[in-house]
Amino acid sequence: MAEESVISTIHSMADVWDAYRHELDGVEDRIHKNLDSSVALVNTVAAQILSGGGKRIRPLLLLLSARLCGYAAKEHHQLGSVVEFIHTATLLHDDVVDEADLRRGKKTARKVWGNQISILVGDYLYTKAMCRVVEFRSQGINEVLSEACNKMAEGEVLQLYYNGNPAIPESDYIKIVEHKTAGLIAAACRMGAILADASEAQQEALFRFGQFLGIAFQVADDNLDYVANGASLGKTIGQDLRQGKATLPLLHLLQHCSEHDRHMIKDRMETRTLNATDLDRILLLMAEYGSVTYAMDRARTYIDAAKRELELFEDSTARRALAVTADYMITRDR
Amino acid sequence: MAEESVISTIHSMADVWDAYRHELDGVEDRIHKNLDSSVALVNTVAAQILSGGGKRIRPLLLLLSARLCGYAAKEHHQLGSVVEFIHTATLLHDDVVDEADLRRGKKTARKVWGNQISILVGDYLYTKAMCRVVEFRSQGINEVLSEACNKMAEGEVLQLYYNGNPAIPESDYIKIVEHKTAGLIAAACRMGAILADASEAQQEALFRFGQFLGIAFQVADDNLDYVANGASLGKTIGQDLRQGKATLPLLHLLQHCSEHDRHMIKDRMETRTLNATDLDRILLLMAEYGSVTYAMDRARTYIDAAKRELELFEDSTARRALAVTADYMITRDR
Repeated sequence: MAEESVISTIHSMADVWDAYRHELDGVEDRIHKNLDSSVALVNTVAAQILSGGGKRIRPLLLLLSARLCGYAAKEHHQLGSVVEFIHTATLLHDDVVDEADLRRGKKTARKVWGNQISILVGDYLYTKAMCRVVEFRSQGINEVLSEACNKMAEGEVLQLYYNGNPAIPESDYIKIVEHKTAGLIAAACRMGAILADASEAQQEALFRFGQFLGIAFQVADDNLDYVANGASLGKTIGQDLRQGKATLPLLHLLQHCSEHDRHMIKDRMETRTLNATDLDRILLLMAEYGSVTYAMDRARTYIDAAKRELELFEDSTARRALAVTADYMITRDR
Repeated sequence: MAEESVISTIHSMADVWDAYRHELDGVEDRIHKNLDSSVALVNTVAAQILSGGGKRIRPLLLLLSARLCGYAAKEHHQLGSVVEFIHTATLLHDDVVDEADLRRGKKTARKVWGNQISILVGDYLYTKAMCRVVEFRSQGINEVLSEACNKMAEGEVLQLYYNGNPAIPESDYIKIVEHKTAGLIAAACRMGAILADASEAQQEALFRFGQFLGIAFQVADDNLDYVANGASLGKTIGQDLRQGKATLPLLHLLQHCSEHDRHMIKDRMETRTLNATDLDRILLLMAEYGSVTYAMDRARTYIDAAKRELELFEDSTARRALAVTADYMITRDR
């Protein structure tokens, strides 16, 4: 009964943060402790990006998955910090690859310290994470995490390969998203389950849960490029398009607009010459054909599929928190 | 007696290549098989740099170390390919960080495909290596390799930190070299020993052997910047200095030359304005003070220390091959 009354308090993301604040503080503590390089510059650069306002979604999902499967110890704080290190390493490299100047409204590390430092501190964080993860002496964790990291790199290359090319099949767009974003989130969920000694069926359900969540998250994030308020997210509308990156709303639009408009969009992507008038026209067309709505519906479908995976588990605070977090993944302010 | 006659045939590096050609072919085969990305571009870029004329020194040291400790199976081919993947990943990132146009006389990957691809394929090779290494299910191998990779990244950051600054203490120069170069070589030797189930004492002796070798190798390589024939190595004399990188001969010179010359050198490093006349003067001063000889003597001392570590082991083909390889590490044509 006491447990039931605790369960009932999880209705919103604010409730999740409240209920797991103490756990997330444990993750923060580990993140801080793992920044122990004898080269001070490494710690400075890493600390700057690690304290850049990230929500620690991956550690949260890992610890909720562990709790869902009955984990009672505290090693998941360390494993959560490892996943956050890896995520941060990919952000450092992504910002160099994308030549990004802003992240979450702040100057990127490459703008402050340069590309060289960003590449090398990314390498440092990734390798430091591997040092920490092998300490768990878990074959399952080693395999899941190394595989996820490899898929991430593969997804990034595939994305680069398609850069400037609007003729990307929707299935390849989803493959990119699955690899570059969903893989690590799925791995985080599965590692929580492994830590809790969960059954293979539970591990697989949580892996799929994370994968669906991750795809939905990235699709929703890509969508923001056509709807976000520039100031609040620290990014400008149409930035992906300007950089030659085709995402779901654009792929939808290209399938539905006139030959004339399709030609204009392809030309602007290939030549990187998008201007304000072009962008306004594209946004208007997207509204007309419901492209953003289509993409958001796709994201919502993935979230629904994710939540169905939770049916394998009995009701608990953690399960409710995971369901609430699933919805949160595609809300705007995250 | 038969064994003794085999041992006696190892006198030169050519003998080592001959005796272990079959083993190295096994490593090549694994390198090829591990380039199995579903993204064709990954395989193309990785294959280009992996077939760029590297001598496979790290795999060679790994397999010799394994054989030295009595290893009789063939898993060391795979582990050798893993180490080569990691080495290749660092080359891809280093060339981006150093803005290098040539490597071993050929265009670098970043010149052919760009910085973005080089960063991401580097990430791919590193993470692919980790996928393969965890399959060995060896806690020792996991720990040694992840630690070495982390130290490499740390060494690279430290080197960047000192860039343009000639006031680097010799001890920090050695620390950089130890981390960025010697760590992976030492790890390769130790992993060979671990694979062979060698004693802790043997593992440690081979780790130190690799570490001394690696330091000597990098010191000798840095030296070439002041003596090499540009064409044969595909690099230009004075390149490190031009890029603000202080290496051992220069640190030696700075400690011995006049205040006036010291001021000139520091100015050219800090402002990156070295011209041909300055370089000629620096080379003349180095000859006068014996700076290159000093650095080569240091390298030789490390090789001697490395070879003393082999005394722990009985005479064998592998031990002779390791001793010959040790000398080879600081010869010019490698």
